[in-house]
Amino acid sequence: MVQIRVNHDKLAKALNVSDIDFFILLLVINLIKTFGHRYGKVIDAVSVAARFAVYLTYLEEGNNLRRTGFLHHVEPRRVKEIVSEFDSLLENGGSLCLLGSVEPSYLIGFSYVWLEKYSLKNGELMTQLFNLTESERLILEAGFPKNIPGCLLLRECDVEDLIRDLHEKAQSLLHESKRTAFSDALAEHAKYRLLASETMQEIKITKETSAYLLLKKEYSPKGRQARMQTMVQDLTRSFQWMYSWVDGESGIMRGIETLEIQEDRKEEALQELDQMMRIWADKYHTESDGSNIIALQFLLGPHQEISA
Amino acid sequence: MVQIRVNHDKLAKALNVSDIDFFILLLVINLIKTFGHRYGKVIDAVSVAARFAVYLTYLEEGNNLRRTGFLHHVEPRRVKEIVSEFDSLLENGGSLCLLGSVEPSYLIGFSYVWLEKYSLKNGELMTQLFNLTESERLILEAGFPKNIPGCLLLRECDVEDLIRDLHEKAQSLLHESKRTAFSDALAEHAKYRLLASETMQEIKITKETSAYLLLKKEYSPKGRQARMQTMVQDLTRSFQWMYSWVDGESGIMRGIETLEIQEDRKEEALQELDQMMRIWADKYHTESDGSNIIALQFLLGPHQEISA
Repeated sequence: MVQIRVNHDKLAKALNVSDIDFFILLLVINLIKTFGHRYGKVIDAVSVAARFAVYLTYLEEGNNLRRTGFLHHVEPRRVKEIVSEFDSLLENGGSLCLLGSVEPSYLIGFSYVWLEKYSLKNGELMTQLFNLTESERLILEAGFPKNIPGCLLLRECDVEDLIRDLHEKAQSLLHESKRTAFSDALAEHAKYRLLASETMQEIKITKETSAYLLLKKEYSPKGRQARMQTMVQDLTRSFQWMYSWVDGESGIMRGIETLEIQEDRKEEALQELDQMMRIWADKYHTESDGSNIIALQFLLGPHQEISA
Repeated sequence: MVQIRVNHDKLAKALNVSDIDFFILLLVINLIKTFGHRYGKVIDAVSVAARFAVYLTYLEEGNNLRRTGFLHHVEPRRVKEIVSEFDSLLENGGSLCLLGSVEPSYLIGFSYVWLEKYSLKNGELMTQLFNLTESERLILEAGFPKNIPGCLLLRECDVEDLIRDLHEKAQSLLHESKRTAFSDALAEHAKYRLLASETMQEIKITKETSAYLLLKKEYSPKGRQARMQTMVQDLTRSFQWMYSWVDGESGIMRGIETLEIQEDRKEEALQELDQMMRIWADKYHTESDGSNIIALQFLLGPHQEISA
């Protein structure tokens, strides 16, 4: 995670960021920097969401273009365009795709297609796409990290082909009007991302030629991907409950306890807390018709002043 | 809160929204529909955050325009523009303002300036800006809701002046290049928002003339505003901790307990939970040098399947 509050603390303070703005910064900066979504993609995603908000108002306001426009400060002509965009999306059974996944699909899929297309067959050498002498090969291989996947080293053009294939596969799922054409800049961007995330490594063979080595079988380990999914679900739940709490709806309870704890008692305290919650839930759980299921979500971490 | 999952459940399902996309929808739709930020303002806010992400990468990558551009898929020329935007903001000690506040400042301030400028002086009548006969006045006043603030009814032009004053006050805090000019559409938008939020009410005096009545001393009650502030702080904390949890950092604990509970035992269960947490925190709290402060945040609400 990009700790903007920590690493760029002075910067944020110097810029007098309000709480809600800090929250938006946290989300957007992590989508772009940590997860690697393209700059333009994130802005597009939010634009789609904003247009969808306008569409919902239009439905709620009895299809009144003028009133919808005034409520959100959008020209009626533009509201009309937005309405027809979502009307036709619904009619054609399309998907409302903003980002699609926490990490970009063309990065997640990369190791997988490399392994599928270029895994070593019986007796093949990893370096066989390059003209190397026996000693050049041995020196090169001696520099490989341990535990790398068994597949061919690729040339620059092979890597670009893989990226292009992944891009086109991802695009084919989108409506024609939503597709982004493949470009050199896009290929270069993906290559940089894959190098920066240590999914692959570039090795100079000669001044002009590079070889690319796959370092990981997955862009992001399966466990991490599952945790990211849980994170998004937990945050969505918190979001919904906190809004209900703001509105004063019943059935929501929110609390925070702050304490100073000795390092050597922490383990014990956390275990006790975990057990305590389970015992509490067991005590009050009564199987019935499923109409009164509640959930208790808790999160513990180092205390930090959130407000500036 | 706009319960898109509930009210527009079928719509979201029909559109095959992924978890992360649902989260973004939830945020954007509520900023626009519930809190009343302008459509364009929300998109602008995210664009600023995305540009700031690019700027941070530029600083981290040793001021390398080309590498920054590739990492986020932005043209180096554009990176250069972004860099100079934030460089000069920092140099001039400016503020990085995305939305500024959870609800728009020109809506929050509205009741306040009305009361300040048009509160009733000794013996003044609420209707004195209108030429009404005694009986017309009595009939009009008989229709007023109870407990409305004691201030003048305004003409359309007075309301527009108030909105213009608030707009200009908000704009004067921004850098010149960031200001939005006042327009009829903007005035109309604010008027609709104030009517929709029941901050004021429109009363037809004649076919052509409307009177505007202030209904509330605050756009949003103080308690609600404080709760919204707490919501944003809680969500920011959850966000930071969950990211750390995804990264496998130590010192973070996350959990969820789901149970079915009988309505008549709920009150007791919630009280017990609250007390239990406090006793636990007291037990492990040891005043020391302040280096090991932790916080436990919990939230309870009706169970809902988040994933589609």
